[in-house]
This record gives sequence, structure tokens and C-alpha cells, in this order.
Amino acid sequence: METYRRIVLASRPQGEVAPDNFRLEEMPVPDLREGQLLVRNHFLSLDPYMRSRISDAKSYAPPQPLNETMIGATVGEVVESKHPDFAKGDKVQGMFGWAEMGVSDGTLLRKLDTAHLPLSAYLGVAGMPGMTAWYGLTQILQPQAGATIVVSAASGAVGSVVGQLAKLRGCRAVGIAGGPQKCAYVVDELGFDACVDYKAGRLEADLAAAAPDGIDGLFENVGGAVFDASLARMNPFGRIALCGMIAGYEGQPTPLHNIRQMLTMRLTMQGFIISEHMDFWQQGLLELGSLVATGKLKFRESIAEGLENAPAAFIGLLKGRNFGKQLVKLV
Amino acid sequence: METYRRIVLASRPQGEVAPDNFRLEEMPVPDLREGQLLVRNHFLSLDPYMRSRISDAKSYAPPQPLNETMIGATVGEVVESKHPDFAKGDKVQGMFGWAEMGVSDGTLLRKLDTAHLPLSAYLGVAGMPGMTAWYGLTQILQPQAGATIVVSAASGAVGSVVGQLAKLRGCRAVGIAGGPQKCAYVVDELGFDACVDYKAGRLEADLAAAAPDGIDGLFENVGGAVFDASLARMNPFGRIALCGMIAGYEGQPTPLHNIRQMLTMRLTMQGFIISEHMDFWQQGLLELGSLVATGKLKFRESIAEGLENAPAAFIGLLKGRNFGKQLVKLV
Repeated sequence: METYRRIVLASRPQGEVAPDNFRLEEMPVPDLREGQLLVRNHFLSLDPYMRSRISDAKSYAPPQPLNETMIGATVGEVVESKHPDFAKGDKVQGMFGWAEMGVSDGTLLRKLDTAHLPLSAYLGVAGMPGMTAWYGLTQILQPQAGATIVVSAASGAVGSVVGQLAKLRGCRAVGIAGGPQKCAYVVDELGFDACVDYKAGRLEADLAAAAPDGIDGLFENVGGAVFDASLARMNPFGRIALCGMIAGYEGQPTPLHNIRQMLTMRLTMQGFIISEHMDFWQQGLLELGSLVATGKLKFRESIAEGLENAPAAFIGLLKGRNFGKQLVKLV
Repeated sequence: METYRRIVLASRPQGEVAPDNFRLEEMPVPDLREGQLLVRNHFLSLDPYMRSRISDAKSYAPPQPLNETMIGATVGEVVESKHPDFAKGDKVQGMFGWAEMGVSDGTLLRKLDTAHLPLSAYLGVAGMPGMTAWYGLTQILQPQAGATIVVSAASGAVGSVVGQLAKLRGCRAVGIAGGPQKCAYVVDELGFDACVDYKAGRLEADLAAAAPDGIDGLFENVGGAVFDASLARMNPFGRIALCGMIAGYEGQPTPLHNIRQMLTMRLTMQGFIISEHMDFWQQGLLELGSLVATGKLKFRESIAEGLENAPAAFIGLLKGRNFGKQLVKLV
């Protein structure tokens, strides 16, 4: 009997996520019914949102159930089809989770054009992370040319796109990232105007130097002390797109000390989840896809090999050890 | 020589505001030049914003200078005029500060209709506080009928109007105030659906009972722990109008623990200062003035007698000892 491997949530983390919160299982490949198709997943996307799903805290989405396949976006290839709209060999994007294979009736499955973009890009720069960057920048921050845009986790899948799109709009793009290697990449490879290394211990002074005219738009991916420092430098009528607060995911509250800036600088802050704005997908993908295909939008991937390494890669992502979009290569 | 009294800022507070931060002075009434007029102020408005003006922390407005007349809005009567547009006996609103008299060239002076509204109302329900409530509710929170609107400092000059306007729009109005007397007033006199006494020590449980369906719109006048508790009960896509953070004025930071709600509930928060939205004044005053004149909008004043009592009244305001709009009667 043919089998495939999957990873389920074995237990919810108490504090930090540990490898034994997950369990690798061998599953039989099911027979297809009429209207179904079988996909072999090539890449799995690992993303910070998974951290909140595996806790049972109140959130915008129901928690990941125990003993079921971990949620996750995948790209792969149809290997068998009894569905009229899909043929063997089609490249598709789905939500098959942390698994080597998946069965679908076509719901929420998207066929992919791999003539112009590599398959993995649909999980990053031309997928949810890229769209998150595009939506937050263009629809929430709405920057004018000349504005200073600051983005945290700047070398990551979302942040790297935010800064590059800001540059293309004539803004000053300032990144915040952890360590000199990531900061060098953000400035030298991605073309940001400046990048602040929050691990260097001079966050406030370095941010003041990198954004000498203050901050007009803040794309916040991190939360905590990094967010607090950016808040303190916001200009009047500045706008904040709140996309992630990874610093708070490990069960620690992230008290914010500079919230008064919201009032004194008359700021607007908006939290958002890209999956609630799918009506913008075509518009965003058109810009992102064109920029990638013409080499104007750069991206970097951090690829773990093999499903069995997904838990370690996920824990590394939460600790900021990845460098670029975190993927798991499954074949 | 005729004289009048004024109060100047003698020193900036270190921590809490103290009476000796102010100094009462006797001043000669100046002779009028052509184009000027002399006003005897009847009422002085005391407002929380003055607290940030007398510190030298970075804010949206320059700090109050030392040894000059304390800033403040006043209503009064023209007692002498060499200005073509103003006549003796005209009732006017101005920014003459903590002073019994003031000279003006007409700039920013507004003539008042006292046939339908009492003079003091132009400092409260039909003045800056009322307009602050109107703008924040109608332009930022934009509530639908049936929505739950929560407002802190609910018995105050701004909060009392927020809740009453929300009720008139078919919302559930929930106040937060300090002490059973204020809460009874908010429910029994102003007609709010419920009021939570934050001094009772059961803030979270009482707020849950008062807003059983969560909070759709939050009008935040206070900040700190009260704000944190409201944040925790916000509904998805809820909106927050950030108007005041009085709890942070005494130099203490107000760390916020539930800021993650901004993301998980996809909230929008906007800080605002009413003086930057004067283009809405006519529209707002029309609604507020009509409602006051027809008895549909109730208000309460807390009146200190005599300029010499302004510092004590101001300190009381910062400690929440006032009950309704804090004024100082000058004649």
C-alpha cells in the first residue's frame, strides 16, 4: 500500500514551542472518488500565524485541532485526477498542511502559471506574504513619495516586499532586522535606504539616525520593544499597519509604553489579516508577479529539506533564525 | 488704575501637579488701541489637555510658557470696543486663558447666541468637549444601530455626550466612570444602558456584564488599565477613537498589555484632536445645539467660584473629583 507522511499537532505548547508538540505519522494514500484529485506537495510554507493557531487563545481563527494535520499552505503537482478541471501534471496551490500529499475536490485549489514564476514564489513573494505586504502598504499606509516607511522583520517574506514596494513609490525605506548579516542584505541586496539592527542594543539611537525626519508609515510585523521604539518616532498623522506581533506569541504579554503617541501624534493604526481582503488579490498579484518576472522585486528563501524537519524549521522561524521566506521542500 | 487678576504658570510639575506650580497676579487693564476690544470673562473652562501643555514633553502643541497667562477657553462679555465688528454687551467665546479680562483684536473670537443656549454651554456640551464627542462618534466610530459603544470618563464633558449621541443613534451605550454616584448619574440621568464603576475593583467582570456582546466602538478618554480592559473585549473590526490618556499625564508611563487585540480582532484605532477638524464645526454644532435647546441632550457642570480657585479645581479634575464639565465662574 502506498503511503505518505504528515505531521499532526500532538499537544499545545506551554510557553515556547517544542519539537514534541508535533508528531510525524505515516498515512495510506486514499483511493480517489469521482470529482477528487491527488496532489503531491513540493513545498510547504511555514508562517508565524501558525503559532497562534496552535494555542487555544481567542483569535481571529479557530485553533488547530489536536491530532490532525497541521494547517499550512502548499504548492505541488496533480499526480492523479478524477476532477474535470484538473489534469495530471497541473501545478496547484492548496492548503494541504504539513503533509507530503493531499486529496481535494478542487475547493480553494488554485492553478499556477509556472512559466513566469517559480513554483515556490507562490508561497512567498507572489503568495500570502507578498499580498500581505502589498495590501498593508498600498491600502493602509498609502504612502506619498518622499514619506519615510519603516518595516520590522525587514528581511522576512513580508518585510522585504514592503520596503521594495515603498522604494518603487519614491519613499525612504527603513528596515529593522536582527543582526548585521540580515541588515546588510536589506540594504545591499533589497535596496532599502537603511536598516537598523535591533540586536545591536542601540535601537532608539539607530532608528533616529535611520529615520531622521521621523516615520510617516510603519508596517509592524514584530511588536514589543521594537514596535515601542518605532511608535516613539512617528510623525503627526502617521499610519500604522499592524500585521504581526510575533514577540507576543510565546505567551508573554508585550506591554507597550509609547501608546500615548497615538494621541499626541494623531496616529491611525489598523490591524489586518490578508485572507479577509481577497478581493484585492488580482490587483496585487498583477503588480507583484510583474515585478518578480522582470527582476525588480527580489526575494530570498530559507529552505528546510524534508517534512521531518518542519518542526525544527518552524521553531527557528519563531526565533528569527530563518533568512527569507521559510519553506520546507517535500520532494 | 483698574486691575484684573490672572494666573500664570510659575513652574512645571515634577510628577503630580501642585498648587505652587501656579501664581496669581494682579495686572493693570490696558488701554485699547483702534481695532481692539476688552472682554470680561464670565467662565473659564478647565480641561485635561492643559496637563500636557504645562509639561515640556513632546506633544501636538507647544508647551505653555512659564510666567505667562495659563492657556484656556473662556466665555464672556464685551465691556469696551474699538473694533467695528464687536459692540459692548456682545457675548463672545475666546482663548483668554486663566484671567478675569482679556484684550483681543477679534482674531479667533466667536460671537455667541445666548437666546437658545446658556453662555457656559459653549465651553461644554456646545463647545470643544461636545464637538470632540460628536466628531469621535460620528466620524471615527461611525456606529450602526445595535452596536455597543463604550466610553470612559462617561460622566464627564465629553463622555456624557458620546453616550447620549450613541443612544440617539440606536446603539447600546455603556459608560465607565469612577464611583457609584457618577455611574448612577450616567444611567439614571443620561440614559446610558449601563455604567461600570472602575473603582469597584471588578473592572473586567463588570465590563463583560455591561457589554455582553462585546464592544464595537470604544471612545477612550482615560487610557491605562481602563483602556486595557476595554481592548480585551473588542469585537472583530471594532473601532477605537483615542481622545485622552489622562492616566498617563502624571509622568507615569501607561503600559498596555492587550495591544495584540488590535491584530487578532483587526481593529482600527485613531487618535485625534478636535481643533484639527474645525471644518466639521457647523455640522456638529447644529446637531448639538438643537439637542440641547430641545432638552434631548443633558449636561452637568462642576463650577468653582473665583479665579483664585482654578488651580485647586484643575488638580481635582486630574484626579477625577469633578462631576460634569469643570468650569470656573469669574464674575
